[in-house]
Amino acid sequence: MTTTASRYDPATFQGLRFHTATDAFLRDEDTPRDYLERCLAVIADRESVVRAWVVLDEESARRQADASTERWRRGEPLSAVDGLPVGIKDLLETRDMPTQMGCAAFAGNFPKRDNAAVWALRRAGAVIVGKTVTTELGGPEPSPTTNPFDPAHTPGGSSSGSGAAVAAGMVPATIATQTGGSLMRPASFNGNWGLKPSQGAINRGERQTASMTTHGVLAACPEDMWLVAAAIARRAGGDPGWPSLVGPESPPLPRRPSTVAVLETEGWERLDAASRSAFDQILDQLAVNGVTVLRRDDTVVARLEKALVGASELGSAILAWEHYWAFRDVLADHPDGLSARGRRFFIETAERMNAADYDDALRERVFIRAAHALLGPCIDAVIAPTSTGPAPVWRGDVPGTEPSRWPTGDPAFNFPSSLLGAPAVNVPLMAVRGLPFGLQVLGQPGTDARMTGIARWMGETLTPVSV
Amino acid sequence: MTTTASRYDPATFQGLRFHTATDAFLRDEDTPRDYLERCLAVIADRESVVRAWVVLDEESARRQADASTERWRRGEPLSAVDGLPVGIKDLLETRDMPTQMGCAAFAGNFPKRDNAAVWALRRAGAVIVGKTVTTELGGPEPSPTTNPFDPAHTPGGSSSGSGAAVAAGMVPATIATQTGGSLMRPASFNGNWGLKPSQGAINRGERQTASMTTHGVLAACPEDMWLVAAAIARRAGGDPGWPSLVGPESPPLPRRPSTVAVLETEGWERLDAASRSAFDQILDQLAVNGVTVLRRDDTVVARLEKALVGASELGSAILAWEHYWAFRDVLADHPDGLSARGRRFFIETAERMNAADYDDALRERVFIRAAHALLGPCIDAVIAPTSTGPAPVWRGDVPGTEPSRWPTGDPAFNFPSSLLGAPAVNVPLMAVRGLPFGLQVLGQPGTDARMTGIARWMGETLTPVSV
Repeated sequence: MTTTASRYDPATFQGLRFHTATDAFLRDEDTPRDYLERCLAVIADRESVVRAWVVLDEESARRQADASTERWRRGEPLSAVDGLPVGIKDLLETRDMPTQMGCAAFAGNFPKRDNAAVWALRRAGAVIVGKTVTTELGGPEPSPTTNPFDPAHTPGGSSSGSGAAVAAGMVPATIATQTGGSLMRPASFNGNWGLKPSQGAINRGERQTASMTTHGVLAACPEDMWLVAAAIARRAGGDPGWPSLVGPESPPLPRRPSTVAVLETEGWERLDAASRSAFDQILDQLAVNGVTVLRRDDTVVARLEKALVGASELGSAILAWEHYWAFRDVLADHPDGLSARGRRFFIETAERMNAADYDDALRERVFIRAAHALLGPCIDAVIAPTSTGPAPVWRGDVPGTEPSRWPTGDPAFNFPSSLLGAPAVNVPLMAVRGLPFGLQVLGQPGTDARMTGIARWMGETLTPVSV
Repeated sequence: MTTTASRYDPATFQGLRFHTATDAFLRDEDTPRDYLERCLAVIADRESVVRAWVVLDEESARRQADASTERWRRGEPLSAVDGLPVGIKDLLETRDMPTQMGCAAFAGNFPKRDNAAVWALRRAGAVIVGKTVTTELGGPEPSPTTNPFDPAHTPGGSSSGSGAAVAAGMVPATIATQTGGSLMRPASFNGNWGLKPSQGAINRGERQTASMTTHGVLAACPEDMWLVAAAIARRAGGDPGWPSLVGPESPPLPRRPSTVAVLETEGWERLDAASRSAFDQILDQLAVNGVTVLRRDDTVVARLEKALVGASELGSAILAWEHYWAFRDVLADHPDGLSARGRRFFIETAERMNAADYDDALRERVFIRAAHALLGPCIDAVIAPTSTGPAPVWRGDVPGTEPSRWPTGDPAFNFPSSLLGAPAVNVPLMAVRGLPFGLQVLGQPGTDARMTGIARWMGETLTPVSV
């Protein structure tokens, strides 16, 4: 029997939680092995439609889960996430599985090294189930993954498989990454809790060749999201030169903000009416709960909005230039190994730039960060929709017309957190036409724990909105 | 006939210059191919003793030089370094040659990609002659390279081959790298001009996994040193997130400083009497030339010296932790692929640390950088010896005694520029017992061109000292 996709209701949807299962492991009423088997059953049930995985290693996962079962039985788990089945986005290197990055040019790529985050998860006892599908090199060319709530819709990208696997209840958490909007957009479209950490807060291991990429976590609840992020950061630290994730190992407690600012950036005009109405209902609830909401009539908010005009173009230029150095030779050796959309996004953008253009882009980013820093003392967090609406339908390019630039969804609401190096948390509080639509909470660099606490408060206090 | 090594006199020593040759290329009185053949003849003559190269590709170099010859004949060189024969330190990836990092665990490693600096040099028309010897993974385990001025002495490390190749007149310039003292120490021991640029100023391509590594240039004259660095930075820019090398494409003009500070850091007590006397003669000459020299009785200088106490230990800890992520799995798969000294330096240091220790080390580095920034408005440059003396003799560990920690020389005078992210230029102005001994000029991050100008002024104005 195959479970069909069901429309999403944020008030009733429950994904797979892990932190609530561990008491039963200690009492031997449940085991990590049994937990894993339930995950594998859901994967067997739904994978043919969802297509979230590029590599699954069930045998290895069972061995890891058995070892975890033994540790819990002895009362000696390695961490709070010992036994947690996790999917790794296929941009990160794994010793025992290939790393093909959704890109033909990297077919068969198998460096036999663990990314720092993967290494840390193994040390913490997490069960590496497999590699989740990424769009091509983390760019705009879509992957075969479908949205678990309606297969005609995109799951978002580039962390397509990571978002969909959590939404489908296949695993409680996955590792995702973001350079533009690759973690937060899928979180919005799949109803995940998502943490895009402060730039540098989680060691990216070999993936250091971009200045605004982060590894983050998608999960079905904020507790698991934080536990996974903290377990990695505690063991592998931050990026070279960056302090690691600030905060406790246990999930930060809910925290009521006094003042938040709404950021109306370039995505605002592209919000559809229903999504805007859902977001307005959230703002009304914040006011009812005594939270002051600043908007663009505040001059400090207006200054940041103004600095962020053109953020998607600026962010696209920076990421194209930086990725050029990592991918240039491989793609030159495999001229057919990259889609036309990927070539336009990564290669052609970079080849129109020179080192001085890149330096200018960095100066612009410094200016944006300064405008954000000025807002720091005035508010507890920035909030905004996480996407311009719920997941759009993607049926492929229409022959004879200009190919879609963003087939996995518009990243306009996501580039700001990337450019700012800011922590951002997606709160799955809204549904539009039966599909998830996220709220994001964004803070100053280093405030990941505080933003997670504020997001938890919103998740527990505000009434989910369906329009 | 093999040329024997000769003792070094900084007043008369002349390495191989390139920038003085290009006028003859334009007039067709000399060609890049002939220039290369002269280099290859020196290599054939001296390589059996000096052992500066791990891979030499003479055929490819001749093809590259012929193409350059054609461009100069047409009056259309790609850059000022078109035709310049250059050696690439074997830590940097090259498409057409293996990258074995002086380490048995990486024997046969051949990723077939060009490091960003290598790519940029090719675009600028430079002739890639081969890969120069590095100590094992750029660490303390010595390489087979010998000092061109006396083969019983070390050429320094880790850029052993890069320093020795320039000193032996095999090529006019080489690419080197520094994390602790890997560029500046060989520059001192080999009588090279050397630029260790500001952190981030030259794109390291795939080598981004450490927060205080830089690619730099060793050359026989300041003009070639700068031309090569600028040719790379102009094409490949800085590291992701960092502005590229600030300054003109042509060599910065000599620049007289008004005030310099002498930094007496932990290396000071280990300077031998002859080397200290040579350095004192330089200080006397500065005073004669009207340059004010601040020393530790100045409170701002004293504050930086105090902040730098323990710099070698701090720097060693940071670099061990950061390298751990890059090398961990490869070394685990090749337990005999790393020397005992390398294992102690890279692996055991890191395994004694955790993420919180690393964060603490970064905080300490922030404090040191703040102390350096305070000095910025007070002086034009910091000066110091580049090493604790000329190159020591290295005959191998003595069985039954504790293995030498720094067989390629003490890095105590080099860790400061690495920790500070500061540009540093080695001026080959001194000889001690017939071997080179360098003076370093060190500035605030971003002042690479200014420091090069000050170093040139010193090189042209001060009388070389032999003791």
